[in-house]
Amino acid sequence: MKRISEYAVEVESAIRELGIGSRRPESLYAPIEYALEAGGKRIRPVLLLMTVDAFGGDVEAAMAPALGMEIFHNFTLLHDDVMDDSETRRNRPTVFKKYGENAAILSGDTMLGLAEKQMMQVPDAVLRRVMETFNRMSVEVYEGQALDMEFETRDDVTPDEYVNMIRLKTGSLLGACAEIGGILSGCNDKVCAKLREYGENLGIAFQIEDDWLDTFGDSATFGKPIGGDINQAKKTFLYVSGMSASAEEAKALKMGMELPAGDMRVKTVTRIYEKMHLDESCRKAASSYSAKALKAAKATGLPEERLESFKYLLDRLSGRKK
Amino acid sequence: MKRISEYAVEVESAIRELGIGSRRPESLYAPIEYALEAGGKRIRPVLLLMTVDAFGGDVEAAMAPALGMEIFHNFTLLHDDVMDDSETRRNRPTVFKKYGENAAILSGDTMLGLAEKQMMQVPDAVLRRVMETFNRMSVEVYEGQALDMEFETRDDVTPDEYVNMIRLKTGSLLGACAEIGGILSGCNDKVCAKLREYGENLGIAFQIEDDWLDTFGDSATFGKPIGGDINQAKKTFLYVSGMSASAEEAKALKMGMELPAGDMRVKTVTRIYEKMHLDESCRKAASSYSAKALKAAKATGLPEERLESFKYLLDRLSGRKK
Repeated sequence: MKRISEYAVEVESAIRELGIGSRRPESLYAPIEYALEAGGKRIRPVLLLMTVDAFGGDVEAAMAPALGMEIFHNFTLLHDDVMDDSETRRNRPTVFKKYGENAAILSGDTMLGLAEKQMMQVPDAVLRRVMETFNRMSVEVYEGQALDMEFETRDDVTPDEYVNMIRLKTGSLLGACAEIGGILSGCNDKVCAKLREYGENLGIAFQIEDDWLDTFGDSATFGKPIGGDINQAKKTFLYVSGMSASAEEAKALKMGMELPAGDMRVKTVTRIYEKMHLDESCRKAASSYSAKALKAAKATGLPEERLESFKYLLDRLSGRKK
Repeated sequence: MKRISEYAVEVESAIRELGIGSRRPESLYAPIEYALEAGGKRIRPVLLLMTVDAFGGDVEAAMAPALGMEIFHNFTLLHDDVMDDSETRRNRPTVFKKYGENAAILSGDTMLGLAEKQMMQVPDAVLRRVMETFNRMSVEVYEGQALDMEFETRDDVTPDEYVNMIRLKTGSLLGACAEIGGILSGCNDKVCAKLREYGENLGIAFQIEDDWLDTFGDSATFGKPIGGDINQAKKTFLYVSGMSASAEEAKALKMGMELPAGDMRVKTVTRIYEKMHLDESCRKAASSYSAKALKAAKATGLPEERLESFKYLLDRLSGRKK
């Protein structure tokens, strides 16, 4: 089996080989090339490829659907950046800021079309299962994003609702990557369901860890300034957990969050989180989803030595403080 | 064979039966229900169903993919309305104006997912052909919309470029409806290509006729105020034809179009079009694409009595002045 970094390198070169930048009309395809060349961890195609590899499937043939998942992921970023009015991503202007809103919408739509074209490059025998898995996943991602936006105007979001939202918005795509890897390798429905469970819980653990890092992490490791979530009053795992504690504690947290955005708000809210021991319970929650993911991976029946990459991905994505 | 209006009624009730309005999250599905209940002519699913009927296919089983094409069409309207900043559609506020831009983007994405779910409800034997036809069509529609937006900032668009743009933006979807109708009825590739040609040319004829009606039509029949295209300085078939005439005539037209938006501009430009006999050449162009469509329909080998609905649709869509 290959190492994670080797798959990522292969994904990069397969993306370049698509030659998207030379397609016309340029106004449509230049933003797509810009988005896809930005790099990133390529976790989603890597997860699909390593799953195929672990089950002895045809890794080379799986590159097309693996790229499809990566292109889909980047499509969601284009649209999310418009909806969230985001200016930068991966240290560059977003497509939305660089090419304008219309380009971000329409090039995003086109990326979805390109993604599905890649997804269809699978044998006839599994085409329907692959496309149905992809389709269900896509709608779940949109439902997750809709809930995320609904939460912005609500102050009574429970931790369970929050976890359900990130399961849809982040977990579903990772779940589908592992599941489709299984489908392509001839795994039965039960094993595919376990693979999906691995990916979903990996995604949940990853997002909760991300919430923790945004407040308690180190900006060098995290790659973003610390305190962004607090400054944007985002409904994170920390915040919704705090708001579902005692009325008194919730009130203090709400007041802290209503301070003007800036250092004072970040410091105050961080101190409240610490006083409520939310930093620990947040890490604990991430660990418990990480453990669920590992349990699901083991339940696929893969021999121990073939679980290494599944473990590595968990450590890398949900243990980023180390 | 059923009449066109009967198919349209069945499409309406099949849309209601999807029960989209009761799905959650409400912020995601309410705009979709609003968009789909707006009615419209339902031409696209009707074209698919009548094609299946004409070739003796299973009309009932074709309802799911027919709905898929209608939902796809409405998805493009949601995103187009954001890109074009359109306030009203079918005499109601657009989704963009009623629910906001984020809802129009995300509910649009979700509609595409719902559309594809419908498209997949076809027998295994034709799944790949149907999905590949749908996929290619979707990317063509986006390319057409991109060209349409590119044309806004260009003054040297040729009539050929214009026709290519509307072939992609409007013709491709109608072409795919007829083609998929053929695929579902067991038609061979040659017949399917002719059906596609019928739909594409129907779409081109329809759009050129629409350009004519916007300037020379009757607002009661047209359903919109006359002169909208001139007031928005849109690159229509009339305008690009005029701009590719003699330098002197093009200059006069350009000056007319640079008058302040309002009655004076509409009157002046209309008079220039008339002086250049563009009203006649525009009608002639629409007729020639209509004739191409009919020729393609006949080339499918359908007996004369089964061509009636294909003729009726051409008359209805590209002969709306009568």
